[in-house]
Amino acid sequence: VERTRVGIVGASGYSGLVATRILLEHPAVELAFGTSDKWAGDAISARAGALRSNRPDLRFVPNAQALEAARGVPYVLLATSAEVSLELAPRLVAQGSAVIDLSGAFRLRDPSLYPQWYRLEHHAPASLATAHYGIPELFGPPPRTGLVANPGCYPTAAILALAPLLRAGVIEPGGIVIDAKSGVTGAGRQSKEAYSFSEIAGDFRAYKLLGHQHTPEIAQALGVPSVTFTAHLLPVRRGILATAYARPRAPRSALVEVLRAAYAGRPFVEIVEPEEVSLAAVVGTNLCRIGVAANDEIAIVLSSIDNLVKGAAGQAIQNLNLMLGLDEGTGLLGLPRSAP
Amino acid sequence: VERTRVGIVGASGYSGLVATRILLEHPAVELAFGTSDKWAGDAISARAGALRSNRPDLRFVPNAQALEAARGVPYVLLATSAEVSLELAPRLVAQGSAVIDLSGAFRLRDPSLYPQWYRLEHHAPASLATAHYGIPELFGPPPRTGLVANPGCYPTAAILALAPLLRAGVIEPGGIVIDAKSGVTGAGRQSKEAYSFSEIAGDFRAYKLLGHQHTPEIAQALGVPSVTFTAHLLPVRRGILATAYARPRAPRSALVEVLRAAYAGRPFVEIVEPEEVSLAAVVGTNLCRIGVAANDEIAIVLSSIDNLVKGAAGQAIQNLNLMLGLDEGTGLLGLPRSAP
Amino acid sequence: VERTRVGIVGASGYSGLVATRILLEHPAVELAFGTSDKWAGDAISARAGALRSNRPDLRFVPNAQALEAARGVPYVLLATSAEVSLELAPRLVAQGSAVIDLSGAFRLRDPSLYPQWYRLEHHAPASLATAHYGIPELFGPPPRTGLVANPGCYPTAAILALAPLLRAGVIEPGGIVIDAKSGVTGAGRQSKEAYSFSEIAGDFRAYKLLGHQHTPEIAQALGVPSVTFTAHLLPVRRGILATAYARPRAPRSALVEVLRAAYAGRPFVEIVEPEEVSLAAVVGTNLCRIGVAANDEIAIVLSSIDNLVKGAAGQAIQNLNLMLGLDEGTGLLGLPRSAP
Amino acid sequence: VERTRVGIVGASGYSGLVATRILLEHPAVELAFGTSDKWAGDAISARAGALRSNRPDLRFVPNAQALEAARGVPYVLLATSAEVSLELAPRLVAQGSAVIDLSGAFRLRDPSLYPQWYRLEHHAPASLATAHYGIPELFGPPPRTGLVANPGCYPTAAILALAPLLRAGVIEPGGIVIDAKSGVTGAGRQSKEAYSFSEIAGDFRAYKLLGHQHTPEIAQALGVPSVTFTAHLLPVRRGILATAYARPRAPRSALVEVLRAAYAGRPFVEIVEPEEVSLAAVVGTNLCRIGVAANDEIAIVLSSIDNLVKGAAGQAIQNLNLMLGLDEGTGLLGLPRSAP
Repeated sequence: VERTRVGIVGASGYSGLVATRILLEHPAVELAFGTSDKWAGDAISARAGALRSNRPDLRFVPNAQALEAARGVPYVLLATSAEVSLELAPRLVAQGSAVIDLSGAFRLRDPSLYPQWYRLEHHAPASLATAHYGIPELFGPPPRTGLVANPGCYPTAAILALAPLLRAGVIEPGGIVIDAKSGVTGAGRQSKEAYSFSEIAGDFRAYKLLGHQHTPEIAQALGVPSVTFTAHLLPVRRGILATAYARPRAPRSALVEVLRAAYAGRPFVEIVEPEEVSLAAVVGTNLCRIGVAANDEIAIVLSSIDNLVKGAAGQAIQNLNLMLGLDEGTGLLGLPRSAP
Repeated sequence: VERTRVGIVGASGYSGLVATRILLEHPAVELAFGTSDKWAGDAISARAGALRSNRPDLRFVPNAQALEAARGVPYVLLATSAEVSLELAPRLVAQGSAVIDLSGAFRLRDPSLYPQWYRLEHHAPASLATAHYGIPELFGPPPRTGLVANPGCYPTAAILALAPLLRAGVIEPGGIVIDAKSGVTGAGRQSKEAYSFSEIAGDFRAYKLLGHQHTPEIAQALGVPSVTFTAHLLPVRRGILATAYARPRAPRSALVEVLRAAYAGRPFVEIVEPEEVSLAAVVGTNLCRIGVAANDEIAIVLSSIDNLVKGAAGQAIQNLNLMLGLDEGTGLLGLPRSAP
Repeated sequence: VERTRVGIVGASGYSGLVATRILLEHPAVELAFGTSDKWAGDAISARAGALRSNRPDLRFVPNAQALEAARGVPYVLLATSAEVSLELAPRLVAQGSAVIDLSGAFRLRDPSLYPQWYRLEHHAPASLATAHYGIPELFGPPPRTGLVANPGCYPTAAILALAPLLRAGVIEPGGIVIDAKSGVTGAGRQSKEAYSFSEIAGDFRAYKLLGHQHTPEIAQALGVPSVTFTAHLLPVRRGILATAYARPRAPRSALVEVLRAAYAGRPFVEIVEPEEVSLAAVVGTNLCRIGVAANDEIAIVLSSIDNLVKGAAGQAIQNLNLMLGLDEGTGLLGLPRSAP
Repeated sequence: VERTRVGIVGASGYSGLVATRILLEHPAVELAFGTSDKWAGDAISARAGALRSNRPDLRFVPNAQALEAARGVPYVLLATSAEVSLELAPRLVAQGSAVIDLSGAFRLRDPSLYPQWYRLEHHAPASLATAHYGIPELFGPPPRTGLVANPGCYPTAAILALAPLLRAGVIEPGGIVIDAKSGVTGAGRQSKEAYSFSEIAGDFRAYKLLGHQHTPEIAQALGVPSVTFTAHLLPVRRGILATAYARPRAPRSALVEVLRAAYAGRPFVEIVEPEEVSLAAVVGTNLCRIGVAANDEIAIVLSSIDNLVKGAAGQAIQNLNLMLGLDEGTGLLGLPRSAP
């Protein structure tokens, strides 16, 4: 097999490391490079725990060498902050690489939203206009070149749950509430007291109330003017569960049918009973589970994903697979659930 | 000091055991009896971990001896199932005891709701009509005799957060959504696989969607025709956090002011910033923390309690204190937070 | 490829389900059958979460059909209790199947040990004499037919850590202490209050002191008259860490060298620094990590495994691979760590 | 009642905060001051969660004001690092305060041990010679003035378990192994990635192998030349369980009898069955549970404490009570278990 060379910048964060491992074991990919300041010089396969690596001898290079390392590499994943991605992505595209960016730097079409939500002046509005928002089940395969904005973790859960229902007109577009709960890896590697085990174990709380940067991303992808979105921090490592509330325009059975039809034939979305939407069923995998409860007044749509897989690294590889003309599940279908 | 004799039926469940310990160390109470089939014959103080007990030698009697044990005991707590409470409470009242019932058996005024929500025919509608719903901060001190329906854990959190706002007219009564999350002790002592550590650790899910028996209790106490209420199971032992959504009729500052005024001088309700509403701040104590976030379209009211204390045993003792003419915090103010 | 047909009895326990999933995705195997009373009639691939199954339509049959289902199936895994395995294994062998038994029924050579340690009269002493004790790194590949006694979880961790050191004579055989800690899945699926989340979360304790049935298994495999073995229950789902103490006859460097040599070229044993021996590094995988600290008086040998993988299902498949003449890592190398 | 004024330096660490709360609610104490750089200017009672405080209006002062604040205060607790305590304690004693130091700065009699175990030159050897090592059950009440070295958390658990047995000669003094496991608060407030929730949840490992600074403290208090001590990090907030191994010189019943006699009449040590020695039974309280299993070859002595209470703040207050001529349980007996 001819393997495609793929590089990754920011390979030692949680999402980056999960992506790195999948790339190292991907049957159609050869990892071209991985950058990490923290682990510069270390063997990538050992750090990523890849026992059957396609590049067993490759070592991390410092982040500052990313552009140089990427020269001639046709696909590059950015598992970096929005600030860093904003700098790197346009340069990598200019160098000839297709880029899948896991940050929020290219997800919002309207550059004027960035100062408010990301405390960032966006100096690459042209990239915003052309970036492909990469939820394959809803927005199709990305173009083979250019820039993919890989969705946020909360938005992936919320949008997969609600977009088909809005498109089909079976829920009201106004007044949607999304009450979401995430495991702690969603915050990335942290060295703050607030994220220490002793502070978080046994605790639960909401954060960034009415100010979370994923709010406009969700509204944009759903095609609604606004949504209410609340994020909470769960005392678990991995997983997101979103509980979305909307006014129904059709009975529960119709909502379920719309969802089933929307995801028919797609390996990574499962429509189940609402009490089967759990973290345990999806953590470790690229799956999204969706379930619906409804009466005349309210529809409750639940969805769960692994924030590091379908919410980040897995979806990035799913996008990569489609860019390469492969089956979307390549290298992803075999990921097992972490729960026993 | 003259100590009042108080008994407890169902003393080995989680709520019952917490109540038992508080009663054993209560400065104005003497534990008269405690019933438990599981621990019948065992020393109560040892099981409850009470090192400075007012009845160091007292032993559990079987549940079947409850009525006999209660004869002549002026106050009895029932930490039993709704089925058992429904049988026992009227008989205990007839025997001359005042009863504080921790189950749902006497919380709903309308007996016709019991078959649907509790799968129970209610044969004591007269007791429903006279039972006092015991949230002291909102419904005043209970009468000194008769029957107190001690509120449910989720309702306590939700009602403390929303009732003052509805009474003041600063939020809309229609369309309220309460998304609540509870630790596992809320389900009581369990010997089902579904509640085993291996199934629950690392997991999170919703349950009893649109069918939880606390739904009509919340609506009744709030004085609204209906609410949307969703319960989720958190992988922690203790604590409830409720995130309530309502349409505001006034700015955030007005909502906060209403809450501050409603709870001024009450030791167990703290109005704080919304990100300070956490399990860690309240678990172990009889506290309820409440915080508000709001914009023009939505008000988010967060509240947290310990489901076993303010959500059950602590509130029962708070009601007892008021029935005895004591300060409501007697025996409760010294309970420390479990978090370090 | 010609796939070998393999069946599994007891497929819905934690170890059984992990084995089932690996078999369903194994490149050289076709799952012939899986038994489960709990899930009889359900689709096996869906329950096991196998998205790329070699038998997508296969359904669980009841346990009572195990013998019938196994007719003509050359390899059968037993993920059953010792009592059930003791009945089934000889009959399956008599029917012509090779058997890999995950229980303790055939691990102890001396049948007289069974009443004491397993409360079981052993009626198949001939099978004990011929059963192969299956730790491939220490006892070689199993014979292609017959009966494999797949080791216990604690023994796997302890024996991999100590056997090479004893064989090389670099530690004393007397006075060995093994202080081991296991996640809760080691107890299997449980519906007892003692294993409920509310009882175990935040707790830690030892159990079966000086009476754990893995004690004689460890001594036998190490070739010593006795060991002191203590089991503790960790509030985590998966993983075992064993801390073994022995008197050294050589410096630390020599012990490390012995271990490195013993496991050179083996994919599933990693010799690391003692502080790198952790659950996080191995849970989800078939790896065993081993590390050594020592001074003149004491050698401390640490090892960690996933109790459900290297401690049960993974090692069973590793044995199966070798019986089939395959690379020992087939179907196992791609299992990722659960930790982010 | 005349209340004794007591101050605390380092009041915002985990041990310091627990001590502060106990002091604020102590019936015979008035908190004189509390220092904290982190919370300087904040209300102490609110931070400590003390609802019935003896100094409701007191605010934290910066650590640099400790000496000044302590002038005229007869008792001062130091919940500071060994480095800081080494500086402060002699000066506070010189100023006329009795000092209870929770650090390791004055626990080892031999100053030459400090460079090796604490990377510290000890410049106050005279204080070492006179400091009272404060385990009241074993070393009696401290003198009413001077310096108390409050024991380490691991040493408290290990010494309470073993000292009476060694004193009675019923176990061998040589070859003792102590395998101990601690919750994460034992490491104090942390802002390192290694102590983040995502790194520690679900993990378990040993640390500082053969180099933990509590090793010589344990040996000294036990009166043996050396012990083997291993510390492990449990994924729980609070609690230590120590599993100690020694060669017995008497049967189990004799060992149990020795322990019962040693702790007869003491409220904080419970001799129980070995499987009842658990974190759940002691976390939140000042209790130590001890249990014994033994055969002819080995005695296993288990003990459990809350590292923040009997292992730190609680024992400090217990020492303080005795210095004040109070019952040792004053302000401590009412602390409830955190477990439901």
